[in-house]
Amino acid sequence: MELNAIKKLMEKFANRKEQLYKQKEEGKKVFGMFCAFVPIELILAADAIPVGLCGGKNDTVPIAEEDLPRNLCPLIKSSYGFKKAKSCPYFEAADVVIGETTCDGKKKMFELLERMVKMHVMQLPYMKTEKAKELWVEEVKKLKEMIEKETGNKIDEEKLKESVEKVNKMRKLFYKLYELRANKPTPIKGIDALKLFQFAYLLDIDDTIEILEELVKELEEKVKKGEGYEGKRILVSGCPMVAGNTKIVELIEEVGGVVVGEESCTGTRFFENLVEEPTIEGIAERYLKIPCACMFHNDERIENIKRLVKELNADGVVYYTLQYCHTFNVEGARVEEELKKEGIPVIRIETDYSESDKEQLKTRLEAFIEMI
Amino acid sequence: MELNAIKKLMEKFANRKEQLYKQKEEGKKVFGMFCAFVPIELILAADAIPVGLCGGKNDTVPIAEEDLPRNLCPLIKSSYGFKKAKSCPYFEAADVVIGETTCDGKKKMFELLERMVKMHVMQLPYMKTEKAKELWVEEVKKLKEMIEKETGNKIDEEKLKESVEKVNKMRKLFYKLYELRANKPTPIKGIDALKLFQFAYLLDIDDTIEILEELVKELEEKVKKGEGYEGKRILVSGCPMVAGNTKIVELIEEVGGVVVGEESCTGTRFFENLVEEPTIEGIAERYLKIPCACMFHNDERIENIKRLVKELNADGVVYYTLQYCHTFNVEGARVEEELKKEGIPVIRIETDYSESDKEQLKTRLEAFIEMI
Repeated sequence: MELNAIKKLMEKFANRKEQLYKQKEEGKKVFGMFCAFVPIELILAADAIPVGLCGGKNDTVPIAEEDLPRNLCPLIKSSYGFKKAKSCPYFEAADVVIGETTCDGKKKMFELLERMVKMHVMQLPYMKTEKAKELWVEEVKKLKEMIEKETGNKIDEEKLKESVEKVNKMRKLFYKLYELRANKPTPIKGIDALKLFQFAYLLDIDDTIEILEELVKELEEKVKKGEGYEGKRILVSGCPMVAGNTKIVELIEEVGGVVVGEESCTGTRFFENLVEEPTIEGIAERYLKIPCACMFHNDERIENIKRLVKELNADGVVYYTLQYCHTFNVEGARVEEELKKEGIPVIRIETDYSESDKEQLKTRLEAFIEMI
Repeated sequence: MELNAIKKLMEKFANRKEQLYKQKEEGKKVFGMFCAFVPIELILAADAIPVGLCGGKNDTVPIAEEDLPRNLCPLIKSSYGFKKAKSCPYFEAADVVIGETTCDGKKKMFELLERMVKMHVMQLPYMKTEKAKELWVEEVKKLKEMIEKETGNKIDEEKLKESVEKVNKMRKLFYKLYELRANKPTPIKGIDALKLFQFAYLLDIDDTIEILEELVKELEEKVKKGEGYEGKRILVSGCPMVAGNTKIVELIEEVGGVVVGEESCTGTRFFENLVEEPTIEGIAERYLKIPCACMFHNDERIENIKRLVKELNADGVVYYTLQYCHTFNVEGARVEEELKKEGIPVIRIETDYSESDKEQLKTRLEAFIEMI
């Protein structure tokens, strides 16, 4: 039942480091990023490479805790630790790292990180007032100027149109993937879909598109034949699960669930909404729509979760928070309440990257899945 | 050695609830606030009352934890709990509560709080770019409009000039207080100074000014006579210590230190920088100067701490973080580093409102004070 596209994904990933350094040798600039808010269209339009940064492993947490408080989200600590330990090839390849003021922990961590790597930090507003939109357009403009300066390449209309089309194409394929996952049985395991999102931040976008095209074909075949995975259908909703961090999805699928969607930065927040106009304003508009928990009055997110449960025929929601992530954690109360109103079963999990709570989580998830 | 002004402060505070409700009965509107970022000049200019909200007690934490995560800052939980328990007279008196997006935890807590009380949330930018300044001016304008609508009173030039003068007058008195505290021996105990800042958020501003004027005179007398408090001179730097929360200052003074200054929202961040022009722009400018740890690249704060140590003849710095406050906690690393470079002793304390760590903190502070 193994999918060829997933096999190819793993191969491309295994080869990515070498490929990236080759691209770099050929003169391409590399821009590292932490977050779904970075408009990769601008990087691609300058003939440069956007690449996600490592931050999903517990191994680099202790070295980070030499500088950062212990009670900070594991993703922030892990990322910082990777740079400090020089153990992430993407971090090491990055000419500039692009950050954004999505959350307190990350924002302040950048002040320490920028001693080790050249950084450009975008100011993200938390409301969607007219002035806030203007500010964000300005931030996107400044990013464009920085990329142009760094690469020496002018981002003209034509180049931007091309890159917008390419990224939209990838997004449409992810939409298609979600449509296919809505089938019963669902044609792909959650763990494979998660890896696809995780590696989409790391791979060359042309490779990601190629893999997605093949995957969609394979899954269409499986759906036609009625092949796939049965089990309680779970939507995972919450914090990003970056490469290396597969804990929750693995646990859910170990205890008889099957993850059919991810309302996550490694999921819907990565691909939902196309860029409508290939302009700075059009790009700014699309990215400001991302319903991140950092937004004040983030009702779109709650509507999104409810919609996804329906569209994906999910039986329940696992609300996933990384420890000490205040935004997703506090928002969880409202999400839980709204889902319960609709009769949608939900369990809230808060965890870090360690192994210590795995047995306890497994027991809780098992009980949840039996109950629904 | 008791100061008359401090006696009067305690009396005024004891009477404040009654006075506030009387002012309210007379038709004055009450605007509650959490933070030093709220421009009280606008509230006063509309003949209304700005009042700080309770949030310094552990008692209301458990009721808050019914809705909020446990690992959230005690100030946020305590405030929310006070409203939920209806046990804060200022919260109950408030017609509108003014919040701001200073930190993740507070910002998201407001989404739950606004079910219990009418709220107006200001969007605070985290950088000081031109667009960010424009955004903030707009937010100050919107606040003015909301206050005018709520009170039915127009905030005209004349009224604004008056209120700006009044608040500046209070600020100058606090500057004077700091000058006097710089003396050796220092003429006022830290715990008394702290209460002054705490109650300045709660009292009628005319009462605060009256108390400050009397206090300055009394302290001038004491300085002339060379009277005051000896001991290792400590600058407390970090998170706000709102009314009810006197833990750290008390502990420092119990073990032989004397607090000579507070680089805090209940301290310098409350009074430093005057409003230069009595206009919306002038007000916006003053408030955006507040070196809160929520700012990205908050170097002014570090410079401020170093300057305060010198001006106040401090022997060391107690860096105070409320548990899970990411901004002050992460910034602490840089503060510590910069102070050590200058040979200024510093100890970092992270704590909550409980009693459980008191003995341990006392031992640490005792050792620190002996060492310096």
